[in-house]
Amino acid sequence: MRIDVLTLFPEMCESVFGTSILGKAREKGIVALNAVNFRDFSGNKHNSVDDTPYGGGGGMVLKPDPIFAAVEHVLEMSSSPVKPRIILMCPQGKTYNQKIAEELAQESHLIFICGHYEGYDERIREHLVTDELSMGDYVLTGGELPALTVIDSLVRLQPGALGNETSAITDSFSTGLLEYPHYTRPAEFRGWKVPDILLSGHHANIEVWRREQALQRTLERRPDLLETAELTKKDLKALEILKKNSPA
Amino acid sequence: MRIDVLTLFPEMCESVFGTSILGKAREKGIVALNAVNFRDFSGNKHNSVDDTPYGGGGGMVLKPDPIFAAVEHVLEMSSSPVKPRIILMCPQGKTYNQKIAEELAQESHLIFICGHYEGYDERIREHLVTDELSMGDYVLTGGELPALTVIDSLVRLQPGALGNETSAITDSFSTGLLEYPHYTRPAEFRGWKVPDILLSGHHANIEVWRREQALQRTLERRPDLLETAELTKKDLKALEILKKNSPA
Repeated sequence: MRIDVLTLFPEMCESVFGTSILGKAREKGIVALNAVNFRDFSGNKHNSVDDTPYGGGGGMVLKPDPIFAAVEHVLEMSSSPVKPRIILMCPQGKTYNQKIAEELAQESHLIFICGHYEGYDERIREHLVTDELSMGDYVLTGGELPALTVIDSLVRLQPGALGNETSAITDSFSTGLLEYPHYTRPAEFRGWKVPDILLSGHHANIEVWRREQALQRTLERRPDLLETAELTKKDLKALEILKKNSPA
Repeated sequence: MRIDVLTLFPEMCESVFGTSILGKAREKGIVALNAVNFRDFSGNKHNSVDDTPYGGGGGMVLKPDPIFAAVEHVLEMSSSPVKPRIILMCPQGKTYNQKIAEELAQESHLIFICGHYEGYDERIREHLVTDELSMGDYVLTGGELPALTVIDSLVRLQPGALGNETSAITDSFSTGLLEYPHYTRPAEFRGWKVPDILLSGHHANIEVWRREQALQRTLERRPDLLETAELTKKDLKALEILKKNSPA
């Protein structure tokens, strides 16, 4: 897998690329991560990449030329015959979720375009990008942190990217439910004890308790997830009892 | 405003703190940003901060001791008499949005706890944190990118953090609608022209066109936002016509 990030802040991206799971995946050759400063493709002596908007109003708008030129440079450098997905990070995009992560994780080459607080010239959106992604309903100063977040979620899905201990975790969202509570040593911390059942050694009972806890937490915090989660008959029965006992 | 981030990757956080708007806001003294390595508070000679889960299963769980100790250290260092909000980044949290951003931006001190791919010992959640935040329904390897994203969205709301040109932008979400399309020079790029109206100089007409474009884009991409957006009678009329003309 190859990922190129078009940004005005390549050093910041490189710092994230070199850290933790991303850094290890890169070292192992699982993914090639590359930050491209699209200011290098400004095509003018002032290295300017933005300009005032037609029609007036505040803010600066990213010009089409440097972005098109930077993408074309990346395509030239890439040896792959497959056309990469070209992803624009913007609040108008599709809200990112685990399903999109699993889909994008199959691709062999992705290009991310990160704007910085200004808007994008609409022609970038219309004639260059294949996907627009939003991280959620909040305003940020740039597309870098969203792009890096997406990349983190994709790389951890690549075979070999996570250590054995970690890949075994039943993550939130991949099971369709929120996770059950975790506990580790010490068994008592400042008077707060680990639930007895987890110390009991009865693995079947622990499984039942964890599933119920996951159901209860999802019911309390994210009932919307229950509509799409894969639930057994036992789960549905447990949910019925939980709903009866809930204060609301 | 003071923000402390508890993390195992302080260098990565520092790199983001030093870049772009965050870096400038820090230089101007608008916000104090501080990364704390909670491994320094492990309290054991192996510097271990995680352990296997009680009750079995894969993955490692972050122990309560180092997190409690690191938070207490930050509280001791802080001169403020106000108790800070202590925010846990986790998929089980409340989904972050602009309304939460505007609320948190009023605080004078925030502490973010970033776990790394393992789960948290439940006692951290029950007895230490005041808020749990999730960035969306996807799985990440750590809480750093989410915390940095939240911090970016908070700092840009501080007075003086954005330059004049930028603060004037009518952002997505702050108006309740998605943004209208932006265009800048050149007027023609590879045969694709800027819409005539934006070159017309008729400011009133341009305002009407932009509002309609914002309504249309929101209707096409995020109709859910129309339910909470502040709409005038004119907007509602325009929406009626747009709905009639839409292919669906």
